[in-house]
Order: sequence, then C-alpha cells, then structure tokens
Amino acid sequence: MANPRILELFPNPAPGRDYVIEHTHHEFTSICPITGHPDFGSITIRYVPDRSCVELKSLKLYFHAFRNEGIFFEAVTNKICDDLGSLMRPRSLTVVSDWKGRGGVTSVITAAWKPGRRGPRR
Amino acid sequence: MANPRILELFPNPAPGRDYVIEHTHHEFTSICPITGHPDFGSITIRYVPDRSCVELKSLKLYFHAFRNEGIFFEAVTNKICDDLGSLMRPRSLTVVSDWKGRGGVTSVITAAWKPGRRGPRR
Amino acid sequence: MANPRILELFPNPAPGRDYVIEHTHHEFTSICPITGHPDFGSITIRYVPDRSCVELKSLKLYFHAFRNEGIFFEAVTNKICDDLGSLMRPRSLTVVSDWKGRGGVTSVITAAWKPGRRGPRR
Amino acid sequence: MANPRILELFPNPAPGRDYVIEHTHHEFTSICPITGHPDFGSITIRYVPDRSCVELKSLKLYFHAFRNEGIFFEAVTNKICDDLGSLMRPRSLTVVSDWKGRGGVTSVITAAWKPGRRGPRR
Amino acid sequence: MANPRILELFPNPAPGRDYVIEHTHHEFTSICPITGHPDFGSITIRYVPDRSCVELKSLKLYFHAFRNEGIFFEAVTNKICDDLGSLMRPRSLTVVSDWKGRGGVTSVITAAWKPGRRGPRR
Amino acid sequence: MANPRILELFPNPAPGRDYVIEHTHHEFTSICPITGHPDFGSITIRYVPDRSCVELKSLKLYFHAFRNEGIFFEAVTNKICDDLGSLMRPRSLTVVSDWKGRGGVTSVITAAWKPGRRGPRR
Amino acid sequence: MANPRILELFPNPAPGRDYVIEHTHHEFTSICPITGHPDFGSITIRYVPDRSCVELKSLKLYFHAFRNEGIFFEAVTNKICDDLGSLMRPRSLTVVSDWKGRGGVTSVITAAWKPGRRGPRR
Amino acid sequence: MANPRILELFPNPAPGRDYVIEHTHHEFTSICPITGHPDFGSITIRYVPDRSCVELKSLKLYFHAFRNEGIFFEAVTNKICDDLGSLMRPRSLTVVSDWKGRGGVTSVITAAWKPGRRGPRR
Amino acid sequence: MANPRILELFPNPAPGRDYVIEHTHHEFTSICPITGHPDFGSITIRYVPDRSCVELKSLKLYFHAFRNEGIFFEAVTNKICDDLGSLMRPRSLTVVSDWKGRGGVTSVITAAWKPGRRGPRR
Amino acid sequence: MANPRILELFPNPAPGRDYVIEHTHHEFTSICPITGHPDFGSITIRYVPDRSCVELKSLKLYFHAFRNEGIFFEAVTNKICDDLGSLMRPRSLTVVSDWKGRGGVTSVITAAWKPGRRGPRR
Repeated sequence: MANPRILELFPNPAPGRDYVIEHTHHEFTSICPITGHPDFGSITIRYVPDRSCVELKSLKLYFHAFRNEGIFFEAVTNKICDDLGSLMRPRSLTVVSDWKGRGGVTSVITAAWKPGRRGPRR
Repeated sequence: MANPRILELFPNPAPGRDYVIEHTHHEFTSICPITGHPDFGSITIRYVPDRSCVELKSLKLYFHAFRNEGIFFEAVTNKICDDLGSLMRPRSLTVVSDWKGRGGVTSVITAAWKPGRRGPRR
Repeated sequence: MANPRILELFPNPAPGRDYVIEHTHHEFTSICPITGHPDFGSITIRYVPDRSCVELKSLKLYFHAFRNEGIFFEAVTNKICDDLGSLMRPRSLTVVSDWKGRGGVTSVITAAWKPGRRGPRR
Repeated sequence: MANPRILELFPNPAPGRDYVIEHTHHEFTSICPITGHPDFGSITIRYVPDRSCVELKSLKLYFHAFRNEGIFFEAVTNKICDDLGSLMRPRSLTVVSDWKGRGGVTSVITAAWKPGRRGPRR
Repeated sequence: MANPRILELFPNPAPGRDYVIEHTHHEFTSICPITGHPDFGSITIRYVPDRSCVELKSLKLYFHAFRNEGIFFEAVTNKICDDLGSLMRPRSLTVVSDWKGRGGVTSVITAAWKPGRRGPRR
Repeated sequence: MANPRILELFPNPAPGRDYVIEHTHHEFTSICPITGHPDFGSITIRYVPDRSCVELKSLKLYFHAFRNEGIFFEAVTNKICDDLGSLMRPRSLTVVSDWKGRGGVTSVITAAWKPGRRGPRR
Repeated sequence: MANPRILELFPNPAPGRDYVIEHTHHEFTSICPITGHPDFGSITIRYVPDRSCVELKSLKLYFHAFRNEGIFFEAVTNKICDDLGSLMRPRSLTVVSDWKGRGGVTSVITAAWKPGRRGPRR
Repeated sequence: MANPRILELFPNPAPGRDYVIEHTHHEFTSICPITGHPDFGSITIRYVPDRSCVELKSLKLYFHAFRNEGIFFEAVTNKICDDLGSLMRPRSLTVVSDWKGRGGVTSVITAAWKPGRRGPRR
Repeated sequence: MANPRILELFPNPAPGRDYVIEHTHHEFTSICPITGHPDFGSITIRYVPDRSCVELKSLKLYFHAFRNEGIFFEAVTNKICDDLGSLMRPRSLTVVSDWKGRGGVTSVITAAWKPGRRGPRR
Repeated sequence: MANPRILELFPNPAPGRDYVIEHTHHEFTSICPITGHPDFGSITIRYVPDRSCVELKSLKLYFHAFRNEGIFFEAVTNKICDDLGSLMRPRSLTVVSDWKGRGGVTSVITAAWKPGRRGPRR
C-alpha cells in the first residue's frame, strides 16, 4: 500500500494568512480489487496549510505508489485524506477523487479532514 | 419493475466521517408509458453513507432492470430515491435524473431522501 | 394568445416529498411586436409540485401556441409564470426565458411565482 | 460621450412582481484613451425593474455611441451604471463589463446601483 | 525579484461605490527554483478599490518581471498579494494563481488580503 | 409557399475573380407536413457569384416565409437550391440544411446546383 | 432480429439531382451477445437517393427494434447497410456506427453499399 | 477608405522556401452601408511570401482604418485581397472574412489572389 | 513485454465487403524507460478486416499488459502495429498513439501496416 | 541563440517503415525583437524519421533556449525547421508555430523541410 512516508513537507511560506492550496493529479490509476482491471481518475487535494505544505514531487510519487494496489474508490479517498491530514495537520483539507466511467458509470468521492481530529473511527 | 433486491451493500469503510459518494449512470433507458417509445437519460445518486454503501455493479444491474419498464420521469426518480433510501438508510441522499430531449424539451428531476424518514406518503 | 387551457395536469406521484421538476423547451419562438421579425429562445420552468404536475406534451403544445403571437420578452415570461402558477398552484415555480441574439444583444428574463399568491398586480 | 438621453423607457408590464431582466451586448467597443487603440468586450446589465424597463433597441444605440469615445474600463462601467440607475430607478441593478485580452490580460469590472441612492460621489 | 515599484496607481474614478475590478494575466511564467524549468500559469487579481486602482500596463510589466525568477507557486502568490495590498490598500483583494500541469499535476493557489492588515507574519 | 420573388440581387463587386460567399441562417423553421409540429434547423448557402449576389436582408425574409409552410426536409433543400440557382445563375452553388433532433434523430441534406443546368427533373 | 419490412419508402422528390441525405440516430441501443449488457451508440446513414428515400419515422422504429437483440458491433453495422441498400437501391450509401466506451474502449464501424451490388458474400 | 499605404513590408527571411504565413485579426469592425450599424468579424490572411512579408503592427493599423467605413462584406474582402496582393506580390494569398450574426445569419467570404495577376476586373 | 498471444480473433462477418473497424483505448499506460515515470495516452487501431477481426476484450487485456513495461512511444506504436498486422493479416491497418503532456509536450505517433508485408526491417 | 547542438538523436527503432512522429511543445516563449515583450505559442514538429529520431527531453531544452531570445515568428519557425532538418535528415519534416494573440491578432507559420535539400537560400 502507498506509504505516506514518501510524502515530504516544507514550511508554509505565509503562516500568518489563511490561504488555499489545491493540487490535482490528473493521471491517478489503481486496480479494482474485484475484477483486477485498472481504474483511472483524478485526485484533487485542497487545503489551508498550517505549519507545513506538501512538496509537489513527493506528492506525485505518493500517488504513483497506488498504481498496482487493489483498492476501492471509497477506501483510497479516505486513505489519502487520513495520510495527508495526519502528516500536515492543516487548518482544513478536502480530498476529491473523480473516476472515469466503468460500464457507463462515473463516480466522485469527496472527504474532508479537520484540525484537532485524529482521523475517522474505523 | 426493477427490484431493489438486486442492490447489494458493503460496510462503509469510514463510518466516523461524513463524506459524499456520487455515482452517475450515463446510459439509463426506460419506456414512455404513453407512447411506448424509449426514453434516455442519466441518473446521479449522491449520498453520505451511514453503515453501508451500495455496491457499484449491483447498482448498474438495478438501473438496467428499468430498460423495458413503462414509467414516467417523476415516478422513476422517486422510486430510485425510495429504494436506495430504504435500503441504505444513508445520512443523506439526493437523486437527479436528467433526460434527453423529446420534441425539443429536456427535463431534470431532483428528489432528496433524509434519515429518520419512512419514504414519501403516496 | 396562447390559451392556458391547452395545459393538462396529472396527480403528483410523490406529494409527501418536496422535489424539483424542471422542463426546458429549447425551440421557443414568437414574434417581435415592433419589427414583426421572429424571436427565438428557450423557456425553462422549474417547480416543486403540490397536488398536480403539468403533462409534458400539453406543455409543448402550449409553448407552440406562441409561434405567431407578437409579444415582448418581459410579457411572455410573466404570462407563462402566471398561467402555470394559477393552474398548478405549485409549492414554488420559477420561469426563465433565454433569448438568442438580436443585433449582438442576448437577454434572459427570470420570474418566480409563489404559493398563496394571486399573481402580479398589473 | 454617449448621451443617456438616447435611452427610452417603457412601463414595467408586471410591477407587482420582483423579477430579473438581463441584457448582454456582446459587441461593445470603445477607444483606449492612452494608446488610441480600440477596446472590445461585452456589457451585461441585470436589473429588477420598478416602474420602467429600458427599451432594447435604444439600449443598443446607447452602447453604439461609445464606439469612438476614449474611456477607461473602470469609468465606462460606472457611467453605464449611473446612467441606467438614474433613468430607470430600478429595484436593483448590476453592470458587468468583460474585456477581451490586451497583451495577454483580460478584465472584468462589476458595479451595482441601488434604489434610494443618488449615484457615487466622485 | 519583481519590484513592486514598477506598479503605477491612478485615482479610483468612483470611490463612493464598492465595485469589483478583476484582471487576469494569462501568460505568467517564472522558473521552478528546484529544477530550473519554466512554469506557466495565469494570475487573477480581484479587488474592490479604495483610493487607487492599479494601472494595467504597469501591472503587466510587473508580472513580466517574474520571467526569470526562481520562485515557488505558494511564494509568488503571497508576494503578489502582499505587494498589491500594501501599495493600493484596497477594500478587499484576492489573488488566484492557476498553474499548468507538470507531470500530470495542476495547481491553484488562492490568497486574500484585507484592509487594516499589515501583511502576513513570515 | 415561400416566393423567390422576395429575393433581391445586387451586382457582383468582383466579377473577375472566382470567390466564395457563404451565408448561414441559424434560425430556420418550417412545419412538418405529417405531424403539424414545427421543425428547426439551419440553412447554409455557399456559392461563387457570377453577375449577381443575393442581398442578405431579402434572403432572410425569403427564409422567414417558410415559417408556416408544411414541407419535408428533402423538398425544402431542393426548393431553395432551385430558387437561388435559377435567380442568380451562379458559377456554383451548394445548399446544406441541418435539422435539430426529432425523437433522437438529426438530419443533414446537401444539394448542389451547377451553371448551365436548368434545375432537376421532377 | 430487426425486420427491414418496418422500413417505409417515399419517392425521391428530386431524382434529377445527385444530392446527399444524412440521418443520425443518437440513441441506438442493443445487447452485447457475450455479456448480455446493453450497448449504446449512434448510427449515421448517408446516401444519395435514386428512386426512393427512407421515411424518417419508420427508420426510427427499425432502429428501436434492435433494443433487445444480442448482436455484435460489426454485424449490426453490416446488417443495416444491407437492409437499407437492398430496399432503397440508392446511388450510394454509407453506414457509420459509433459506440460509447466499454472498459475505456470506444469503437467506430464504417461500411458502404454500392449500386449494382447484391450485398456482401457471407 | 483604409489606405493600403499604411501597410509596411519587410524582406522574407527564407525566400528559398515555400512556407505559409497566416494572420487572423479577431476584432475587425466596419459599418453596414445600408443600416449604419456596426458589423463585427474576423479577417484571416494566409499567404506564401515571395520577396516580402507584411509587418504585423502595420497590418493591424490597416485593419483598424476600416472602423468607421461603410462597406459591404463582399467588397471589404476583395479590397483586402487586392491591397495585399498588389503590395506584396506573394506566391499565393487567400483572404477569409468571417462575420458575426445579424438577425440570425452569419457569413463567410473567401477570396484568393494569385501571382502574375493584376487583380480582378471590376 | 505484452504478449500478442493474448489476442483472440473471430471470423469477419462480412468478408465480401471492404469496411473499416476502429477501436480506441483511452486509458493506455506504460512506463518511461528512462525516468521510470508512468506515461498515459490513447491507442487507436483502424483496419479493414480480411478473414478475421480482433476480439475486443482480448484487445483490452493485450493493452493492459503494457502497464508496467518500460517502452518508448515510438517502439510501442510499432510493436502494436506489427503484432496486430502479423496476427490478423488485415487488408489495411493503421495504429495511432496519442500521448498526454510531459513537461508541456504532447506526442502523436502514426504507423501503418500493409498486406503482403512481413513487418518492418529492424 | 538556441544552439541546435543541445539536440540529441537516437536510432530509429523501425527504419523499414515510413511512419509519422509528431511532438507539440505547448509552452514556447520568446521575445519580440521590436517591443521587447514576451511572445507565447506552441511549436509542432511532424516528421517521418530516416536513421534517427530526436530525443524528447533534449528537444524540450532546445525549445527552452529561445526563452530570452529576440526573434520574429517567421524567423524562429524557419530556424527550427533548418536545425532539425540538417541534424536528422528525415524523410520529411513540417514545423508549425501557432502564436497567441497580440492586440487581437493570432498567427500560424508553417514550413516544411525535404530530404536532399540543404536548407533555404538566405
């Protein structure tokens, strides 16, 4: 499973201001755990940084690490949200995964992480 | 009529978080009960899961089951809303049906289901 | 002038739920009362039904009945709003007319009808 | 300078209802007062009429009257807002000017007029 | 580094009105400080002027001055926000930078400046 | 039936050159002779003028004259081709009619007229 | 299997001219003979009529008749080409079927029929 | 009338090669000689240079010079073709004017100039 | 390396006719052999079948087999062309690969196979 | 000036076949030699390789080397054509440069190089 330790942080250059950073990875791919077929989609992370920002190249490598993982849409979205939230402790964070069609069905999953929160009970 | 028992559920992987799941079936088709001609459109379901999520392949088969049913736009939208709400008991649920043109007229029907609600009086 | 008696109603299939029905007629045409030239546009009606819904084919014929009427953009929008509001007594109703360009100018008129209201003073 | 006396009014056909009228002139052109080069853009007026509506052909001629005027983006937007507000005394009025690129820069100016207001202090 | 002294102001032509001015520079380019490769994007500034407006040509030259600077997405957005805020002291100001893809990732950074504020603590 | 005598000609301003004139009327409407419902489409005429060009306003009025005529797609296209060919005797002429959908079907009819030809045998 | 006897002809209104008629049915659906899942696509027929044209409503009903047939993309395209060619004996005929994605793959099949030809050897 | 002497030439930097230069002016405007209303469109020139190329800024000023001229679509296209052909004597030259809608009609005029030709007989 | 033995054939249902089959796989991905980063693109095959057609699901699995292969754009295009040509011996075959941007550069490679040809000399 | 020695070649992997390689650099920028302002555009190279292909990363660096060069549209297009033609000696080569608007004018320059040719006489 994609290891969040791949992710690298750098100090927020403007910690006195609440501002929004959004990165969209347009070429996310993982494997459907039931059929074994590849899934394709985009992942958007949108956050207000506190002390740290995530470094862009390490973020891309973290996303690449899902390439051969069998994982459901709902699970991958929550995992990315938990990994980034736990690591950056941002002022707010939203993760959106937008999946290409399979048999005429497209899907979008949207999850938010909030400060002072230890991650979802599972 | 499409039987909601086709639908299968799986446990919500992140029940401690309110997050949004949206599936859009772009190839919905049923029959106009007056003219007997086929209708075409897309169906979007958008919900915050509680204990369960609907499994995607069973959802597709449930939609396919309307293929030769004669049913009005308003009725099919409310039926899908009732079927999915009763089955999943989600924290919230919205169903949107968006219909291709007939004689230059397109239609969009939007219905919501809410927790603690037994479905609409009919 | 287009006679609202052309419009036919059918009973709301889900009166226990507030839900939204939207129909867009993309091929509306009437006559400019000043120049005598044809006007073209689309008409959208968006409403929450109470006891009744408007039947789609009769709605289309009602719109067709404006084809050779000389009527201003503002007047036709308010007339459709009044006719449909008085007939259906919906929980809410909005009418939007969106007109193609004349001499480089396009226009959009938006009017709302509300329950318990007898129509605008004229 | 474009004279607002070109503008003609007609009585609001539905004064008992608050409804929105929007006209967009897609072919506005004036002259940059610094370079002398032509500027191109669109002007949208969006208003809730009170007693009067502006007649569409006179509005177009009023816009045409800016064709050879040297005037800044900010000034033309405020002038149109003042001219139409003073003349119609609408329940509300917004003017949006949207300018094509000059050297890779596009601009949008948005100004609102409100009833009971005599126009901006200059 | 791009010197904000390039920026020129002119008096707000309608100081009695709160209105919005938006300029988008579609051809912003700077240098990635890590790889040395060029970055491309657009910069939008949206503000309610108080006493002064920024002159458009000087704004363009200010943006051009980043052409060969090595600077991160987050830093350039905050710098533009600080430079314009300090200079114009507008009633409000938002800066949005929208960056083209690098390795399949696009980014959008949004920062706001507010009156009475001396800029972010760094 | 639309009378070609509505059409007015003016002398070709550049008879020494073979060049192409194309006019597209985007708001053509006529009546389906079977159902009585309106049809909508666009008509493009593309021709190399010889001695005369067709005047644009008269062309528009000629197209408007089909508004309440019951006529098939194939027939209207051939009639316009014959009317314009006989009148202008152009060096070449093509007429394309492009019809909006009826029951999910769109249609395009393309007919050409050539000099020295007396029109189709019927 | 869809019976070509559903198709009705009418006499070509301009037999003295070679001109092109194109109809596109945007809502074609049939069944995949292997998986039993529905396929969706559009069918375009483009022909130069000789003595007869195909009547549009009968063409639509003929296409509807494939709704519950299990048939491959390649076979349905060739069957439509053979059925229409044999019936109309047009001066030329092309059939294009354009299929929506299945598992990320879209398909287009293009077949032509020519006069004096008895259909493909099978 | 726009004077072709505004146009400036510079020597073709690659006279040993036949290559194509295309410039499109997206903001052409002139005056309809009948109604006095402004016309808007784009002008494309596409040519293979021989000894000279037309300088871009002078071309823009030449196009600006039509701003207040009353001239027909057909005439302006042929005049631009003659002016540029006579001046540059290119290996080939095509001029395309593409006009925005007037009363629902758009127009495109295409004229070509060829070397060794003195311009059209008028 | 993706093994062409994955590919399955079925008999051409209309061998007496030259017709065109085109399949586009929109979710092709392989690995850049230099950087190890994933590449994304679409692959289109367009062919006139002779005795056999390629079965669609096996084609998809063949494309999936490149997922973790390090291979250049030029090489993968030629390999697919050779594999499909050798296997089907079609009357003609073209393969087009269209690659998403890397550092602002997109690429398209187009190769054709012809009957009676043993594949390219390497 | 951008030095073609930056360009690196690799052996054509399929020299026995004539096939087409197309690369488009979407983020080309250079400097206008007259105004000193930046120009932006895309450069497409399309070629049939003979013995060698150009390596993609070196091509990108070669394009980057124009970043601060003052050079005309016509000259940069011919220089890229000459540099790549002389180096690769391809079976054919076309270069297209497509420039964003300056004052409402966009430009496209297309030049071709052919084997056995030493480059244009200058």
